[in-house]
Amino acid sequence: MINKLLIVGCGLIGSSILKRVCKKKIAKKVFVYEKSKKNQRILKRFKLKFELIKKMDKKISESDFVVICAPLSEYEKIFSLFNKYLKKNVVVTDVGSAKKRIITKINKIKRKDINWISSHPIAGSEVSGPSNGDEDLFINKWSVIIKQKNSSSSQMKKIMKFWKFLGSKSVIMDADQHDRIFAITSHLPHLIAYNLILTATNFKSSNKNNILKFSAGGLRDFSRIAASNEIMWRDIFFDNKINMLKVIDLFINNMKIFKREIKQDKKSLETKLKKLKKVRQKIILLKQDTSKPDFGRA
Amino acid sequence: MINKLLIVGCGLIGSSILKRVCKKKIAKKVFVYEKSKKNQRILKRFKLKFELIKKMDKKISESDFVVICAPLSEYEKIFSLFNKYLKKNVVVTDVGSAKKRIITKINKIKRKDINWISSHPIAGSEVSGPSNGDEDLFINKWSVIIKQKNSSSSQMKKIMKFWKFLGSKSVIMDADQHDRIFAITSHLPHLIAYNLILTATNFKSSNKNNILKFSAGGLRDFSRIAASNEIMWRDIFFDNKINMLKVIDLFINNMKIFKREIKQDKKSLETKLKKLKKVRQKIILLKQDTSKPDFGRA
Repeated sequence: MINKLLIVGCGLIGSSILKRVCKKKIAKKVFVYEKSKKNQRILKRFKLKFELIKKMDKKISESDFVVICAPLSEYEKIFSLFNKYLKKNVVVTDVGSAKKRIITKINKIKRKDINWISSHPIAGSEVSGPSNGDEDLFINKWSVIIKQKNSSSSQMKKIMKFWKFLGSKSVIMDADQHDRIFAITSHLPHLIAYNLILTATNFKSSNKNNILKFSAGGLRDFSRIAASNEIMWRDIFFDNKINMLKVIDLFINNMKIFKREIKQDKKSLETKLKKLKKVRQKIILLKQDTSKPDFGRA
Repeated sequence: MINKLLIVGCGLIGSSILKRVCKKKIAKKVFVYEKSKKNQRILKRFKLKFELIKKMDKKISESDFVVICAPLSEYEKIFSLFNKYLKKNVVVTDVGSAKKRIITKINKIKRKDINWISSHPIAGSEVSGPSNGDEDLFINKWSVIIKQKNSSSSQMKKIMKFWKFLGSKSVIMDADQHDRIFAITSHLPHLIAYNLILTATNFKSSNKNNILKFSAGGLRDFSRIAASNEIMWRDIFFDNKINMLKVIDLFINNMKIFKREIKQDKKSLETKLKKLKKVRQKIILLKQDTSKPDFGRA
C-alpha cells in the first residue's frame, strides 16, 4: 500500500497505471501531473478519485512514491523539478524503454536523497494517450527493474511490489543487460517496421494506392508497429544508440547475405528459413505468444 | 458451377479450397492430388466427398478445371504431366505468389491447348498443411488474376467466378505489376522478418534465453511471420528475384540513413516517424486492417 502516489505524465502507460491504482485502491491518495491540455480534458472525464496537477510545484512534495511515465527526453527537466520540490527519501521509478544513457545523465544531476530505481514494463501498444489507458495492460507482462550499484534492496522490493500490484511479474537486470536485450527484442523491430513503411512509400510503383490496398500480405502488420508514438521512439533510438548502431550493422550484413543467396538461387536458403521458423516454437513455449494461427484480423 | 475439379497439392491453401468447394457444392466431382503421405492421411480423415489421387496419370484427364496449390518449384514437373494427360481446352489456374519468372518458364513448355490463367489469392497464414485448412480463408480477401497477352476474356471470367465462389474479390493485373506490388507488400516484409529472427539468434547477448523471454516488445510478431513455410518462401524469393534485389537495396539504403540520424541525435527523426505513422490510417481506411489497438495476444 502506497501513501501518496504521484504519476508524472499520463499517456497510455500513465493512465493504465492510474486506472489500475484507483480500481485496486493501491494508494491512499493519487496525484497526476499532465501538461497536455488535451490529455487534461480526457483525464477530467475519468470517473476516478485523483488530483490533477497542471504544474509541478510544492504540491508534489507530499508524495512518497513517484512514477515517471513521460518521454525520456523530458527526464532532465522533470528531475530538476524533483530536486526542487520532492521530499527526502522519496522513491521514484519510471517506465522508460532505454536505460544506460539516461541513468548516467540523471545520476549526475539528481539529489542524492531522491531514490530512483528505474523500471520498464514490457507492455504497450501502437496507440497512445490516456483515452487508450487499460487497467489490465500490465497483467502477466514482465516488468524489468534496473539494479544500480547503490540500489537498496528494500527500495527494489518496493518497486517490485508496485508492479505486482499492477499485475505484472518482475525481473532484475542491470542497465547494460537491459539495453542489449531490448535493442534486439524491441528497438530494432520497431526501427525495421518504420524503415519498411518508408521503403514502401518511396518504392516506385506504377500505382501507389495498390501497395496499401494489397498490404494484407505482410506490410499491414508492420504498419501497426510503425504507428507507435514518434517522440517515445525517437528518444528510445537515441538513448540506446550504442546498441542500436550494433544491431543495425548486424541486420544489414545478414540482409546482404540473404540478397546474395537470392541472387544465386541458392537452394540451401530453404534450410536457413526452416531453422529460423523454429524460433517461433520457443517463443510460444515461453508464453510470449499463442500458437493460434493468425489468418489476419477481420 | 464446375463439372470436374482437380486440386493439385493440398496444403493450407489447397485444403481451404477443398473445404469450401465441398461445402458450397461448387463442383460436381472433386479430385485431389497430394503426394505427401502425411497429408494423405490427414485428408482421409476429412469427412468430405472427393477422390484422392496419389499419382497424376490418365485419371486426371477427366478434369475440366484445375487449381495448382503446390510450391512454384514444382510447376515444371506438374505441367509436364498436364501436357501428357490433361484434355484439350481445360482451364488451369494456380495460387502462386510470384508470377513473371514462372509464367515465362511454363509458357515455353506448356501445351497450347491447356489454358492457364494464373491467380494469387492474398490469403494465408504462418501455419501450413491440410490440418490448418479453413473454408473461410478467402472471404473478403483479394484474388489477383494475371492477364497475359493471349488470355481469353471468357476464361478470365471463369477464374474470377471461381474466386467469387470461394468468397473473394478479384482484381486483374499483369505479371510485372503483380510482382512489383507484392515484392514490397509481402515478399520484402517476409524476408525482413526472417532476417530479424536470424539477427536476434546471432546477436551476442550475455543471456540468449532472455531474448526470447522478452520478445513481447516486438520480436514475437516478426517470429510469427518468419514461421511461414520455408519451401514456399524460398521459391517466392527466387521467382521474384529482380524485384527482391531492388527492394532489398532500397531498404538497406533507408536503414543506413536511419543509422546516421540515430548516431547524430537528429531531432528531425521525430517528424519522419510521425509521417510514417500516418500510413497506418490509410491502410485502415482501405479496410486492410482494423483500428482496434493491439495490446498483444493473451
